[in-house]
Amino acid sequence: MTTENVLIAGEWRTADATGTFQAENPATKEPLSPVYPVSSWADCDAVLESAAAAFSEMREMSGDRVAAFLEGFADHIEARSEDLVEMAHLETALPQSPRLADVELPRTTNQLRQAAAAARDGSWRQAIIDSAANIRSCYAPLGPVCVFGPNNFPFAFGSISGGDFAAAIAAGNPVIAKANSSHPGTTKIFAEIARESADAAGMPVGTVQLIYRTNHDVGLQMVTDSRVGATGYTGSRSAGLHLKTAADGAGKPIYLELSSNNPVIVLPGVLEERGAAVADEFVSSCLMGAGQFCTNPGMVILLKSTSAEQFISEVTKRFEAAPVGTLLSGSVRRSLSESHQVLQKAGAEVLCGTGCGDGSGHCVANTLFRVSGLTFLRDPEVMQTEAFGNSSLFVVADSIDQAVRIIDSLDGNLTGCLYTASNGDDDDVYDLLAFHLRRKVGRLINDAMPTGVAVSPAMNHGGPFPSTGHPGFTAVGIPASIHRFAMLQCYDKVRQDRLPEILRDDYGGPARRMVDGVLI
Amino acid sequence: MTTENVLIAGEWRTADATGTFQAENPATKEPLSPVYPVSSWADCDAVLESAAAAFSEMREMSGDRVAAFLEGFADHIEARSEDLVEMAHLETALPQSPRLADVELPRTTNQLRQAAAAARDGSWRQAIIDSAANIRSCYAPLGPVCVFGPNNFPFAFGSISGGDFAAAIAAGNPVIAKANSSHPGTTKIFAEIARESADAAGMPVGTVQLIYRTNHDVGLQMVTDSRVGATGYTGSRSAGLHLKTAADGAGKPIYLELSSNNPVIVLPGVLEERGAAVADEFVSSCLMGAGQFCTNPGMVILLKSTSAEQFISEVTKRFEAAPVGTLLSGSVRRSLSESHQVLQKAGAEVLCGTGCGDGSGHCVANTLFRVSGLTFLRDPEVMQTEAFGNSSLFVVADSIDQAVRIIDSLDGNLTGCLYTASNGDDDDVYDLLAFHLRRKVGRLINDAMPTGVAVSPAMNHGGPFPSTGHPGFTAVGIPASIHRFAMLQCYDKVRQDRLPEILRDDYGGPARRMVDGVLI
Repeated sequence: MTTENVLIAGEWRTADATGTFQAENPATKEPLSPVYPVSSWADCDAVLESAAAAFSEMREMSGDRVAAFLEGFADHIEARSEDLVEMAHLETALPQSPRLADVELPRTTNQLRQAAAAARDGSWRQAIIDSAANIRSCYAPLGPVCVFGPNNFPFAFGSISGGDFAAAIAAGNPVIAKANSSHPGTTKIFAEIARESADAAGMPVGTVQLIYRTNHDVGLQMVTDSRVGATGYTGSRSAGLHLKTAADGAGKPIYLELSSNNPVIVLPGVLEERGAAVADEFVSSCLMGAGQFCTNPGMVILLKSTSAEQFISEVTKRFEAAPVGTLLSGSVRRSLSESHQVLQKAGAEVLCGTGCGDGSGHCVANTLFRVSGLTFLRDPEVMQTEAFGNSSLFVVADSIDQAVRIIDSLDGNLTGCLYTASNGDDDDVYDLLAFHLRRKVGRLINDAMPTGVAVSPAMNHGGPFPSTGHPGFTAVGIPASIHRFAMLQCYDKVRQDRLPEILRDDYGGPARRMVDGVLI
Repeated sequence: MTTENVLIAGEWRTADATGTFQAENPATKEPLSPVYPVSSWADCDAVLESAAAAFSEMREMSGDRVAAFLEGFADHIEARSEDLVEMAHLETALPQSPRLADVELPRTTNQLRQAAAAARDGSWRQAIIDSAANIRSCYAPLGPVCVFGPNNFPFAFGSISGGDFAAAIAAGNPVIAKANSSHPGTTKIFAEIARESADAAGMPVGTVQLIYRTNHDVGLQMVTDSRVGATGYTGSRSAGLHLKTAADGAGKPIYLELSSNNPVIVLPGVLEERGAAVADEFVSSCLMGAGQFCTNPGMVILLKSTSAEQFISEVTKRFEAAPVGTLLSGSVRRSLSESHQVLQKAGAEVLCGTGCGDGSGHCVANTLFRVSGLTFLRDPEVMQTEAFGNSSLFVVADSIDQAVRIIDSLDGNLTGCLYTASNGDDDDVYDLLAFHLRRKVGRLINDAMPTGVAVSPAMNHGGPFPSTGHPGFTAVGIPASIHRFAMLQCYDKVRQDRLPEILRDDYGGPARRMVDGVLI
């Protein structure tokens, strides 16, 4: 059995491996045949060296060239979409259609093309010119970016295809991709396509490189290496926090998307008005993709009432009746079951599920828990244990005042939703709760569920710690997501011909610039 | 002897003190009479509670109100300028005129007024509206900001007067000020003025609070407290890194300005052309304010040549002849002498100074070191030991190639300067060295010294670690500096009347907004 090669400096090379691993088909629990290497530091060092060399070339590269690469890459992805969809389906058990082929893949190529447009335009660099003082500044690439993609979006958040990749490249940085171990084959296909597209666009060989896995220490060493500019990580909180500690200690920016319970608050008026419809929306949002979304509604806050009881009962019935989805991996299943045990031990009542369910492959029954506001407030930290998957927790508050205390006890989240009646009955409570919730979430949603993250310049897919590592940045939405991978560079009394084009007096390109206080 | 009160929740209260301290007049080495408390956690807790309450009020406050406060504050500072200048002179030995009264104070009020204008205008919030999807986002205040000001700018970077203060307030956050222990009396006057101005503008009592000092652990506890939004710190690297580790671990943004050697590279052509003039500029920049500037030129890189030798000799003569300035404190003196010992031990040759000098009060002789490129490269880390004060290090490179290696071995710096001939003789070398230097510095300067940081929107007073904690942010320059103290907030399908004014369809205010891809 041969071990797959890693992509270093434009070549598919035999890895310097300290071990191997195989992915699994989560629907059959059978290992998939390809064997992938666990790379040693020697591989990482070679990758970093090539990335550093690529960065030297890319720093003086036009946005047009970078854009051409991203656009060519998007085209080539479409040309190989069947291979990608088939492989991702095998590795993740996500449905080929509509999910992979008709939703995630178009979203991915759309995002790459938006990033290309931003790179070509250059306005993201926020050029500012003070002519009188001859001081000029703009954002510029900051160095090779390590991307650790998550398990749940093999395309749209993939290490060589997703939002972090697109943003890092659009800023002008090489990417060092660490494949997610649950879909290495999918990442490999992206790497093949990226390599060809990079060649075709005349990009340096170290623009996109791929290793599949490293051990823990080697990973930490990589994100702190002096040749690295920054890291993007989407995944579990514990692994992410280890990387964060290491990167922070070395003064290397790291952008994390870690965990989020995405509280949904359903107020009494809307329950009266259309409780059953909201139950439908909730069940659909929470069980879609077996609940494996960063913005899955993992917590529902209700005010104690008959209509709340009815809502809980309706959701429970639907959860019991709904088919049980296949999870992304055995590891997701184990982690979900562990979280369930933590919640139960902390006093959450099981309304349904927690067992193995009757789905195919790795699965856990659709699960609902319930706690009183009082129980929740006894240990909010434990009650916020993320149960990533087809699972949610009802928190039933005794009073509005208690609901406020529950919200105040929440960790930072990516999203928070408030459902209210259309007749104004909930408006006063809305104002109070929204005020408290607003601080805790990156995106505040009204009368809709949190799943679904539009690729819009107005989107914020971010939020206070620990949902991410910094509340000022978004991972989705162009051009804002690009700034994560840029440094601010100022030129003071620098001669015209030594300035980057975008800062020159005779610049004729498309970028919007702030010149002497006027945006032109 | 009574101990000074701290300012908590709008009242000057007796501190819950675990100790006391006095400031010193650095010119006489005599302690100044006022006794200041070292606050316990109880004081910090009370401050945090009041700041949290203030933040709740400030979150819904108009930019106009915040602007009125900042403008009133600037006016009141001017009205009490004599007190401030006198006290700051006593505590820091910085000259009353021109430095304190005619340079730093006007710069400080100018900065506060620029921050006020930004708060009133609101464009800094970068409102983005996607009407079709009804997704809207903007920056918003993120919570109480702890400000730790440095010793060297009692006004312009002071905890209750400087750039971090102005930016944090302009974003809509309360400020918790920790006075710099070398000028507590100056900070106290600012707190008095700020309290009155805040009252006059109808700001909450917890808008500006002051404690003088805490012990180490209490300081760490404060920056990690859940009620804190972020921290701004300017000061020594070691204390800053302790705060950073704590804040990072708690997921709290912290913006640091730590240390910087601000390399100045003087190329052969310009030495031929006007070496003596550059020597004058260097001496003036390096000895101004006894060299106690964040952007003081602490390192000069030269290429081995007769003209380089002559330059070194001319600078040395001028250093020996120049009057010796008084340092800010005994602690600065000790730290400077310690750095000198480190450099000497590492093999740097003393050209002049290192002794106690003939200045008044705390002082160290004007000091110059010299090393070969080879010696520097043997241990670049030690050779970059910051010697904060009237001191600099010449690094004489054997070749252009070695100069490149020296630059590549540099830590991140706030600034980097390149001096070149006007006749083009240095242009090829410039291109090479500037390319390498650019990555290492926040601000690249041509043919001028690094001291002097204009308050311009195009300024970057920031740079790669360890000069700061993140290369994407600047501490000087409005509106960019305000973003450090803001979080990104998105509103998804939120009804018009529930939106912040700046995101509504009928917004009629002055802020520039991006509406459906058009900036208006």
